[in-house]
Amino acid sequence: MRPSGRNANQVRPITITRNFTAHAEGSVLVEFGNTKVICTASVEESVPRWLKGKGQGWVTAEYGMLPRATHSRNRREAASGKQGGRTMEIQRLIARSLRAAVDLEKLGEQMVTVDCDVIQADGGTRTASITGAMVALVDAINYMLAKGLIKENPLKGMVAAVSVGIYNGEPVCDLEYLEDVAAETDMNVVMTEDGKMIEVQGTAEGEAFSHEELLAMLALAKEGIADIINVQKQALSS
Amino acid sequence: MRPSGRNANQVRPITITRNFTAHAEGSVLVEFGNTKVICTASVEESVPRWLKGKGQGWVTAEYGMLPRATHSRNRREAASGKQGGRTMEIQRLIARSLRAAVDLEKLGEQMVTVDCDVIQADGGTRTASITGAMVALVDAINYMLAKGLIKENPLKGMVAAVSVGIYNGEPVCDLEYLEDVAAETDMNVVMTEDGKMIEVQGTAEGEAFSHEELLAMLALAKEGIADIINVQKQALSS
Amino acid sequence: MRPSGRNANQVRPITITRNFTAHAEGSVLVEFGNTKVICTASVEESVPRWLKGKGQGWVTAEYGMLPRATHSRNRREAASGKQGGRTMEIQRLIARSLRAAVDLEKLGEQMVTVDCDVIQADGGTRTASITGAMVALVDAINYMLAKGLIKENPLKGMVAAVSVGIYNGEPVCDLEYLEDVAAETDMNVVMTEDGKMIEVQGTAEGEAFSHEELLAMLALAKEGIADIINVQKQALSS
Amino acid sequence: MRPSGRNANQVRPITITRNFTAHAEGSVLVEFGNTKVICTASVEESVPRWLKGKGQGWVTAEYGMLPRATHSRNRREAASGKQGGRTMEIQRLIARSLRAAVDLEKLGEQMVTVDCDVIQADGGTRTASITGAMVALVDAINYMLAKGLIKENPLKGMVAAVSVGIYNGEPVCDLEYLEDVAAETDMNVVMTEDGKMIEVQGTAEGEAFSHEELLAMLALAKEGIADIINVQKQALSS
Amino acid sequence: MRPSGRNANQVRPITITRNFTAHAEGSVLVEFGNTKVICTASVEESVPRWLKGKGQGWVTAEYGMLPRATHSRNRREAASGKQGGRTMEIQRLIARSLRAAVDLEKLGEQMVTVDCDVIQADGGTRTASITGAMVALVDAINYMLAKGLIKENPLKGMVAAVSVGIYNGEPVCDLEYLEDVAAETDMNVVMTEDGKMIEVQGTAEGEAFSHEELLAMLALAKEGIADIINVQKQALSS
Amino acid sequence: MRPSGRNANQVRPITITRNFTAHAEGSVLVEFGNTKVICTASVEESVPRWLKGKGQGWVTAEYGMLPRATHSRNRREAASGKQGGRTMEIQRLIARSLRAAVDLEKLGEQMVTVDCDVIQADGGTRTASITGAMVALVDAINYMLAKGLIKENPLKGMVAAVSVGIYNGEPVCDLEYLEDVAAETDMNVVMTEDGKMIEVQGTAEGEAFSHEELLAMLALAKEGIADIINVQKQALSS
Repeated sequence: MRPSGRNANQVRPITITRNFTAHAEGSVLVEFGNTKVICTASVEESVPRWLKGKGQGWVTAEYGMLPRATHSRNRREAASGKQGGRTMEIQRLIARSLRAAVDLEKLGEQMVTVDCDVIQADGGTRTASITGAMVALVDAINYMLAKGLIKENPLKGMVAAVSVGIYNGEPVCDLEYLEDVAAETDMNVVMTEDGKMIEVQGTAEGEAFSHEELLAMLALAKEGIADIINVQKQALSS
Repeated sequence: MRPSGRNANQVRPITITRNFTAHAEGSVLVEFGNTKVICTASVEESVPRWLKGKGQGWVTAEYGMLPRATHSRNRREAASGKQGGRTMEIQRLIARSLRAAVDLEKLGEQMVTVDCDVIQADGGTRTASITGAMVALVDAINYMLAKGLIKENPLKGMVAAVSVGIYNGEPVCDLEYLEDVAAETDMNVVMTEDGKMIEVQGTAEGEAFSHEELLAMLALAKEGIADIINVQKQALSS
Repeated sequence: MRPSGRNANQVRPITITRNFTAHAEGSVLVEFGNTKVICTASVEESVPRWLKGKGQGWVTAEYGMLPRATHSRNRREAASGKQGGRTMEIQRLIARSLRAAVDLEKLGEQMVTVDCDVIQADGGTRTASITGAMVALVDAINYMLAKGLIKENPLKGMVAAVSVGIYNGEPVCDLEYLEDVAAETDMNVVMTEDGKMIEVQGTAEGEAFSHEELLAMLALAKEGIADIINVQKQALSS
Repeated sequence: MRPSGRNANQVRPITITRNFTAHAEGSVLVEFGNTKVICTASVEESVPRWLKGKGQGWVTAEYGMLPRATHSRNRREAASGKQGGRTMEIQRLIARSLRAAVDLEKLGEQMVTVDCDVIQADGGTRTASITGAMVALVDAINYMLAKGLIKENPLKGMVAAVSVGIYNGEPVCDLEYLEDVAAETDMNVVMTEDGKMIEVQGTAEGEAFSHEELLAMLALAKEGIADIINVQKQALSS
Repeated sequence: MRPSGRNANQVRPITITRNFTAHAEGSVLVEFGNTKVICTASVEESVPRWLKGKGQGWVTAEYGMLPRATHSRNRREAASGKQGGRTMEIQRLIARSLRAAVDLEKLGEQMVTVDCDVIQADGGTRTASITGAMVALVDAINYMLAKGLIKENPLKGMVAAVSVGIYNGEPVCDLEYLEDVAAETDMNVVMTEDGKMIEVQGTAEGEAFSHEELLAMLALAKEGIADIINVQKQALSS
Repeated sequence: MRPSGRNANQVRPITITRNFTAHAEGSVLVEFGNTKVICTASVEESVPRWLKGKGQGWVTAEYGMLPRATHSRNRREAASGKQGGRTMEIQRLIARSLRAAVDLEKLGEQMVTVDCDVIQADGGTRTASITGAMVALVDAINYMLAKGLIKENPLKGMVAAVSVGIYNGEPVCDLEYLEDVAAETDMNVVMTEDGKMIEVQGTAEGEAFSHEELLAMLALAKEGIADIINVQKQALSS
């Protein structure tokens, strides 16, 4: 029995609010239950120095949490003078996931930076971030097409993410905080809309997990991500 | 004529949403027109080391902006490895303003940290922050009273802030971004609910300002802050 | 009664020694009583990158204190790896004050950096710094004129600063350390030689201050700054 | 056809040299072909502050590369003032993998820090690091047992790691640099000696990968890790 | 012929002004010709953590230069976020030199920190710093004796320093800037008042130097330091 | 009697292994007894910005220690966010020593960076580093000659280094750790193959040292360096 009463394969209520803030070319509030993340996509008509002259664009991401997004206050990373290891790991994951959705050559020498800032955390902030960032990225790409900054749509398809894990001995999908801290295994899966895998990151928190458990978790992830991509598409069509 | 059509003494529509996020003891979304700031107040049952054993509490504040709260993206301070001078100046101002509202001895050896994070900027982020932070602080104090962490209410009264300036040669109240960048003089005023001054920070951007202009700006500030304190009180009574 | 026996409107003995060190284009030792600051103005025949090609110059400032300028030793900022919030706040204030005295277009694409380093502190280091920095800046400008680096004098007039405050319930001018720590209100005022205001920064340390107190402090500041500008002018004419 | 002529399921020649340097409680040189890593395990009779009094120990890891371990020189992280995102990601992975091999309560309030420093890189530095670090950790634990620092052996079993990937459309095991840069998919797998999984981190570099490809890679990883654990055991028994 | 017309064995005019600033327990302005350094000695009634409980004291030093102490402006180390290699090297040298003059056990668990801040540089800032720091240290020790913080005088004797070098093929003593930049060899020597050596740091800038040149330089250093120690003693007796 | 039974003038067994790692243009493992350092020389076909257009090259060096190269583990400098004073001092010494061996104009606008990373420390890491770095530099120069990057050999001759000191009242050569910590005086000497001095850095750890002791130490250094340069030459000729 899950704390929320959800079935093992059931994701939390997911809402995606576009145009959440005013200035960014793409701006989304994504909510996975009580986890809430603001994702903004910013277009820049240049690329990082190491990419100059290579005829391709770039998509990158940064991640942060407001200090009191969590149960107790975390020190502000800007005040401590550096981003922690967890932050770096997550923002690298978001960026790789988004790049998998885009043909960088069609972007031309332009860059999109997606900022994911968690304003309320209840487990699954990285998968919510990827999911919301994808929608913000689509809006930014549509802005670029409308502005004539790019001629051809560089989007290869939607990408979304979900966490799965072994909780109380059972595989479950989209863990909330209470499940997350108690889970024996935690796995983040990023998939394309045609069910292929972009990232699979599974970690045994306590006991090592078996091949069968891995397969069960992957099956749940596939199902959950299909649901989430539906929510993305509905948000984009509204 | 102001860009918004407001009268010189008219503040923008101000809304204060309490309990905006789930975890903090006080959590407020404050909006001054299109300027939007999340203010969370976090209670800690200890004080900084330099205050230990002195029988008093502390109130402090931190300020940040999401990278794309502004028209073009700013570099994330956590990534650049330090808080800029403007950030430090603002968070020191917020903290001093809040401390003016609290009897630190009645707090006992406990600390409240208020985080002000701008999610959308359109001028006046520091005055909106002070205004929202004050409400979050009241909620945190009420939490402490309810929990028995403090016996006596340490609140000395409400504090709020507004910007005033000389725009197109005329004194105006609560400048939005378009006014702010064009203003000859910019002044931030923090006042108590009985009309006394806590902070006055006036800066000539172009021409130096006269004594008469200062008086006219102060009169507008007094009027605007009275309106803002009304909004704070309505929010707290709802 | 003030610790020094001064009248309320009386500034401390102020001396300005030009050519205090050998290398800088302007080099001043400014003393407000026991507060002593070395101010050097350095000319550079280029501007920061963000100003390149805009046909104007720049004036900036940095501030520091020797570790034992104060009663007890402060940690050296170079050793702690960053400038503190107070330092940043002060150097931004000095720079804005100096820029108010200069027509940046007449400077051409050149920059003057004024370093203010406190070698002995006894209250009022930021107002002493502005006052001394102004004289060093004039010497640097005269150097530039003599060298033919600029054709037309970009100086718009003198600028000076003084602190005022409420000490033992009375408004006083140019607070020394003993007054500063006990003051209920502390205000720094920067004015032009024709009595207009460039910066007004008033802070209630304990009790909020009234409109009448503000007016009384401003009147003292105006008087004090007039005296200080006389000292500047005498120093420059000698 | 692989550049080295290896079969798809064949790991590189692996050698583990114990007691490679003199001072550490465990010191290993691990070589996966041309990838060479020095792994030292250091015992400390205390735990980090946040673990004090909880009656358990800790195992952590740090990772670095000599600047010229790679084809072209990388900037020294100590000189650039921070560890990069890749470094942080890897050292967190090593540490989690090692902790999965140890019963932290049996360690008592003591800590083992394993440093993995790459002196020559040719792909797979993180999996070589985990493999070598495990042996250094066993030596450190044996030192602690011999010294009487712990009573009961906290080791739960061996842990090793290997990379697998899709290279030229075929799943292969233990990628060297030439394969790594060309691989469509790269996956690092950490397993226990009884074939259970501790970490699975798969990343699509170009194309997303299918469920079948994932299964094929996992099968190769299982086989490779079994071979590697044999090498670990032989090293430990010599 | 030297730029100043000095003889090869002649040091510049050296003046030592005690009680140069007000707050430090020892405060000295030392001038070696146009090189001017403020040296303050600060007493603290505790030792660094790593010395606690060892029954001895500590003497340490920090070194800095005002940004415009030199011909062109150097970046402020506090602004660049770290002390450079040259600064660290010099402050370690000063500290070692001072510790050679003091019996640390007689200091008890107390610390003296000497700050050497160059306000004007014309060659030899490190040797001037050591020379002035020694006098400030003596004043701080006398303060400690007078205050009863120490019972027995821990001073073992005076220490002073001078630079020597090969300039235009000839050994010379106490190089000023013009000589310093042109010297083939530069050597800093720190000696006790009985002519023994504490530090000898010789560097070939261009050509390597011979044994005979080393001997000639050492002879000059011995002579120069004897003169400098006389100046120290006169300053201390006045 | 020395701990190792060596004569006073006897250096430890010294071995120099060339081509120790695969990627660098010069790569050496140098061993002075139990002190072991990896020295790699990296060629770059450009110079630092401040040297651009001056028609000369540059040789620089960086130094590091693996955290557990020493008896107890030292904090990793990359993790603490900066290089310590000792590290900076040593890498500046290595770089100056190497530059003394090279005609920088003949290098053209190219740079060689030598990294010295101590993998096992037993005293004398800086002199071992200089000695090994010199051999790696020669290999890098030979690579540049072979590749046609330079036309004329810029090498002026070999350079090597040794430590000497006063141990138990007697001058000894090439101190190992046990001698180093007990030595009254410690001196590092860098010489050319024709017996001239490049660097002499002597430090009294306890008692100041006399002129006679200095001469005795220099004589030992000269003898030791001659032996070491023989080892360098044998390594280079093999």
